[in-house]
Amino acid sequence: MLENLDLSQIMEKEDYKETLKRMEKTLTHLQQQVMQAKIPVVIVFEGWSASGKGTYISRVVNPLDPRYVSVRTTGTITDEKRMRPFMWTYWRYLPQKGNISILDKSWHRLVLPNVRNEWALSATATEGFYDDVNAFERQLIDNGYLVIKFFLHISREEQRRRFRNLEKDPSTSWRNKPHDWKQNENYERNLKLFEKMLKMTTKDQCKWNLIEAEDRRFATCKIMGIIIDSLEKHIEKQTLNKHLAPQITLPDGLEIPKTLSNFPTDGEISDKEYRKWLALYQEKMRTLTNQMYSRRKSCVIVYEGWDAAGKGGNIKRLTSEIDPRMYEVIPVAAPSPGELARHYLWRFMIQMPKDGHLRIFDRSWYGRVLVERVEGFATENEWKRAFNEINEMEQHLISHGVTLLKFWLHIDKDEQLRRFESRQEDPLKQYKITEEDWRNREKWDVYEIAADEMLARTNKPNAPWLVVESNNKKFARIQVLKAVTEALEVALR
Amino acid sequence: MLENLDLSQIMEKEDYKETLKRMEKTLTHLQQQVMQAKIPVVIVFEGWSASGKGTYISRVVNPLDPRYVSVRTTGTITDEKRMRPFMWTYWRYLPQKGNISILDKSWHRLVLPNVRNEWALSATATEGFYDDVNAFERQLIDNGYLVIKFFLHISREEQRRRFRNLEKDPSTSWRNKPHDWKQNENYERNLKLFEKMLKMTTKDQCKWNLIEAEDRRFATCKIMGIIIDSLEKHIEKQTLNKHLAPQITLPDGLEIPKTLSNFPTDGEISDKEYRKWLALYQEKMRTLTNQMYSRRKSCVIVYEGWDAAGKGGNIKRLTSEIDPRMYEVIPVAAPSPGELARHYLWRFMIQMPKDGHLRIFDRSWYGRVLVERVEGFATENEWKRAFNEINEMEQHLISHGVTLLKFWLHIDKDEQLRRFESRQEDPLKQYKITEEDWRNREKWDVYEIAADEMLARTNKPNAPWLVVESNNKKFARIQVLKAVTEALEVALR
Repeated sequence: MLENLDLSQIMEKEDYKETLKRMEKTLTHLQQQVMQAKIPVVIVFEGWSASGKGTYISRVVNPLDPRYVSVRTTGTITDEKRMRPFMWTYWRYLPQKGNISILDKSWHRLVLPNVRNEWALSATATEGFYDDVNAFERQLIDNGYLVIKFFLHISREEQRRRFRNLEKDPSTSWRNKPHDWKQNENYERNLKLFEKMLKMTTKDQCKWNLIEAEDRRFATCKIMGIIIDSLEKHIEKQTLNKHLAPQITLPDGLEIPKTLSNFPTDGEISDKEYRKWLALYQEKMRTLTNQMYSRRKSCVIVYEGWDAAGKGGNIKRLTSEIDPRMYEVIPVAAPSPGELARHYLWRFMIQMPKDGHLRIFDRSWYGRVLVERVEGFATENEWKRAFNEINEMEQHLISHGVTLLKFWLHIDKDEQLRRFESRQEDPLKQYKITEEDWRNREKWDVYEIAADEMLARTNKPNAPWLVVESNNKKFARIQVLKAVTEALEVALR
Repeated sequence: MLENLDLSQIMEKEDYKETLKRMEKTLTHLQQQVMQAKIPVVIVFEGWSASGKGTYISRVVNPLDPRYVSVRTTGTITDEKRMRPFMWTYWRYLPQKGNISILDKSWHRLVLPNVRNEWALSATATEGFYDDVNAFERQLIDNGYLVIKFFLHISREEQRRRFRNLEKDPSTSWRNKPHDWKQNENYERNLKLFEKMLKMTTKDQCKWNLIEAEDRRFATCKIMGIIIDSLEKHIEKQTLNKHLAPQITLPDGLEIPKTLSNFPTDGEISDKEYRKWLALYQEKMRTLTNQMYSRRKSCVIVYEGWDAAGKGGNIKRLTSEIDPRMYEVIPVAAPSPGELARHYLWRFMIQMPKDGHLRIFDRSWYGRVLVERVEGFATENEWKRAFNEINEMEQHLISHGVTLLKFWLHIDKDEQLRRFESRQEDPLKQYKITEEDWRNREKWDVYEIAADEMLARTNKPNAPWLVVESNNKKFARIQVLKAVTEALEVALR
């Protein structure tokens, strides 16, 4: 693809001045429409070193209101990034609705060998790379983001010439890094890697825009033109979409089994047995999490289940012997305005643990297909799409080496009633029960349909759902402890 | 202080079990009150290596609901931290109301020579250290935080013994670092440093709790007891305070000059001159910010001023030639719920730029003494206290080497009316004008009193206010560009 570009194209100065002025005006105006239409925009600049990414980004930013634009240089790999799933970095940079994020380098970097080395990436993480990238981009687009990708191309000779010029000027010489020269030495090999990357990440939904970047004027106008064009199309499409949302059809043939209504709730355990196993497993948790820490392996645990199923107490028993510096519990409530203004997985992804740590989510991203589905906070399209999106996101965690466990704490309707009533009677527990809990209870059957479908569609070998009989809280706690310790033992093998 | 501690104190196992059980119950109950009373709690654990911080933190966390507690290990110094003012790290860890943050090591670490080296701290930054620490702690307390500080003391012999034990056990041997042994070798010297730190940071408002940490049972109960006691007192005090808030009196003798009503607004510039200076200064900005980046110096610029004074356009002209990867503009609006639940400076502090970067605040922390004062969102106590708090916070930035500039864009009342009316007529600008703008305009005189006092109380040699004549937007832009370029030239000298 890159070899077919005609790098000799130029633009005359006179034409340029006038064209640029006109384009800048259009862009200023379009940004206001973007803000009003609440479109989140991601613009990605990739390309050779010294291909002029900084300059072109400047040109694009120039006519924009800088308060609603952010430019992120993502090339530097810090400790913070290295210790988390690769995509974590980019999730953090997602703009909110109406804002524009411009990325100087991006997730596509991973194709370059020096970058892979810097990340010290395991083979498994690299393997699934293209799938992860394409899934991420599709998810952004499906969730209303406009993603515009540029690849800036220059020839080997041009790159060499630019490096030399940079070195001559003392105010820019610090910019030239040893690995830049190396890129030039291995130009042909890098060209092949870039070609492959471009081919593998060009999907209908998100095409690359290849830019002949030797003549600055020509490239500036081509880039500006593409941005203008994309914004205009997206604004128009969004207006249309309001009236005509495409219907998502889920992969057919999957009969949703009635898992929960057939699932027992009444496992029992004697107090003596409970104390014995609790001590044993908690001690195991202490040792295992220590080992996880020293071997830099992370673990994510999701708690879902009926109201009053005993999540809080269960989490407490799971964590009580772990070194508190190694785990964190994230209580998940209704999203804040800033969270609502981004991809619904954003608030969870930015919370993913560092290597060596354990993170527990008390309710989770599954809210999308449970409460948001049932209460109509998500459209049918959105929650249907979510099954696949969640599977992809979890797969990305697993590729990074995260141990992932998901628990559904299961009680029956009578047990819930007993617990609601006892909470209401106990002044110390009254704060735990609200009108909303009673309202949710009335929708038990609808929630059950949603939960059954969730269990069926998101139960994966590496990210299994475990339904836990929880009428007896002690029994449930031991079950969870057992499952977690076993999973950690496997992870440490 | 440490030498007077009786390290031989112990507690019998039988007493311990019972006492601990009782204390745990109390703590569980108190945490619920903390949540209901919406008190933010910070618990700091400092002390010798191997003094058992991890163990004691576990004991404290054990009876607590982990969803509302976070434990932060702050000892590791990452690139992210090193490139920002020292306190940035700790601002990030501030809990929201009702939550408890436990810090394993804290800002007090800076007294240790190896930590100072790791931070590569400049002499100026170290100099003001104790002032910064005491100011930070006082600010937390004044803003409703409960801060509990523990220092865990063990003898040299005990430390040596523990290191040896850690090394023997393969599951813990990785914890021992070379600098730990060094601490033991230089025990006496470190003791003096710790003593000094304890003395310098013991203020009435925030005393250290010294813990004899050789007997784990004794230390556990002492720590738990102090936490219980502090929580109870704070809850009680908070209830009283609602009825009896102490009055803040500002340092007297300061006559507030009527700065704004006497300040001219009508500086003029011809179009030709404007174009000339704009090009000249923007080119200068480009070069200077490049130099700031390569020399890792950061700059913070604050824009305040009347509604419609032209902040947006002014910022655009200031930034348009800067490499967009080197600056960011932060638009400041009304605080979100998560921001309201923390110290009011939190949302600004966590945004402070990395070394080498420029950050521009479009409105700022001065909202506390402007809109929040005028509209009554802050109590009289709060906004009066804020002058000093803001000066302290800015001083901390300056100690780190940040160049700080604050602009008040000044127009007169007639000019504002003209601009409001023209906005209302222009369909492209209508979104810029709201009912609220008209309401604010009616309070012009009250805002002027607040702004005059702000200018008088927060104008410091290293953090000057510059009032900018802005009836003529072009004149204002050149003034700001001139001031910023001059300040950067001074910073780069």
